[in-house]
Amino acid sequence: MKIAALQMQPLSADIEGNFAKIEAAATAAVAMGADLLLTPELALTGYALADRFAAIAEPADGPMVERLRALARRLGLAIVAGFPERSGDVVYNSAVFAGADGSLQLYRKAHLYGPQEKAAFQPSSDPAQVFDYRGWRIGLLICFDVEFPETVRSLALAGAELVLVPTALPRAPISYSISGRMIGTRALENSLFVAYADLCGEEGACSYHGGSVIAGPDGNDLARAGPAEALLIADLDRAEISRARAESEYLTERRPDLYRL
Amino acid sequence: MKIAALQMQPLSADIEGNFAKIEAAATAAVAMGADLLLTPELALTGYALADRFAAIAEPADGPMVERLRALARRLGLAIVAGFPERSGDVVYNSAVFAGADGSLQLYRKAHLYGPQEKAAFQPSSDPAQVFDYRGWRIGLLICFDVEFPETVRSLALAGAELVLVPTALPRAPISYSISGRMIGTRALENSLFVAYADLCGEEGACSYHGGSVIAGPDGNDLARAGPAEALLIADLDRAEISRARAESEYLTERRPDLYRL
Repeated sequence: MKIAALQMQPLSADIEGNFAKIEAAATAAVAMGADLLLTPELALTGYALADRFAAIAEPADGPMVERLRALARRLGLAIVAGFPERSGDVVYNSAVFAGADGSLQLYRKAHLYGPQEKAAFQPSSDPAQVFDYRGWRIGLLICFDVEFPETVRSLALAGAELVLVPTALPRAPISYSISGRMIGTRALENSLFVAYADLCGEEGACSYHGGSVIAGPDGNDLARAGPAEALLIADLDRAEISRARAESEYLTERRPDLYRL
Repeated sequence: MKIAALQMQPLSADIEGNFAKIEAAATAAVAMGADLLLTPELALTGYALADRFAAIAEPADGPMVERLRALARRLGLAIVAGFPERSGDVVYNSAVFAGADGSLQLYRKAHLYGPQEKAAFQPSSDPAQVFDYRGWRIGLLICFDVEFPETVRSLALAGAELVLVPTALPRAPISYSISGRMIGTRALENSLFVAYADLCGEEGACSYHGGSVIAGPDGNDLARAGPAEALLIADLDRAEISRARAESEYLTERRPDLYRL
């Protein structure tokens, strides 16, 4: 499977403008032979909307997601994008996986970061699911979720081979460790691929780290962005998963009888 | 707390020679004002003994450990060292923490790596414990144990502020990711300190990676060794733990209701 990851400067509350960026990246990804384009957390609206999310949020079958699904079908590649999801009285920080075949997967962020996110969103109450796409077993997480090793481990134990993570990592010293050490470690300790697509630049009071990365089962970068807009491409070789699992057996040598979690 | 970590070339089955190396490093560590010296996995005997461990193993109250305890008391610093532990009919891959106050903590490796270790040793059947030393809450793991995020998480949830890891990391491409990404990630994702002391050089058919490291709660190296013998020193500032826990809340924002472990 060949995947692309878009690192993008969001346009605050400008769905039209963000959709145009995603469409351009999707077109480029198709030209590069990619099966899938990953974009950042809340890529369709921007991240720095605070109390405006309630007004801009749409249901998972609303026009924002329907347009994304139509683009995925038209271009023939899957697109993952974050958006604020309206569900009755509450708003989730969600991401959809829109398949080229018209399929749709929805994920809601479970670990909300900081008081602003907690004020704007409801955390997920459902475990992350693994789904099939073009013969690969895939899981979704959003930003802070992936910083908890339990999340990727849960997906790996459910069979995931690729974990896709839209993110909005702030510009801060710790973000070098998160992007540079932790994402590769998640891939390494579970013998799978992780793709992590960040926002970049400035948006209102927020500034973003960039540092999007696609990491392989040996923990190393297949591709890595700097601080500016970028489109990463990586060809994922499933044989690397088998090699890693034969070398380290991280999923079969666990000792749950000794853990106190 | 100031700690030292010894990266050492083991002398195969030469307890006298290995003890002399540990004694020299302990003397140096005291001269540098350290409270504690960490040494590698099976540092007292060497790691590459295969079926000879059964003959060389000693109980935790045998002469090998008693001599280490006497050294710790005499020099006034704690010493952590790995040794093959005889317990009735079985042998464990163990490590002791010998306090300057005469206290002793024993840890047995829970995750054995590969067929040779499994042939030589019995895996632990007890969860790792956290203990107090000079006002710090400390946990022990050995080598492969720390590659499972569940182990450090379990210690962190039990209050650990410092995890000490004697190791014997083989020379292999994946070891760059383990030493360079994963150890820092364990510190980062649990907001604590991790010290990881490796063997180095060659021993029989084994060659070791080196790359010993002391990592802080921000995931970054406080000290790092190259491939050769080295003595790392780092002064651990407990305020870094509080800062990290306030920034990321990795221990309090978990969602165990959603994990499938």
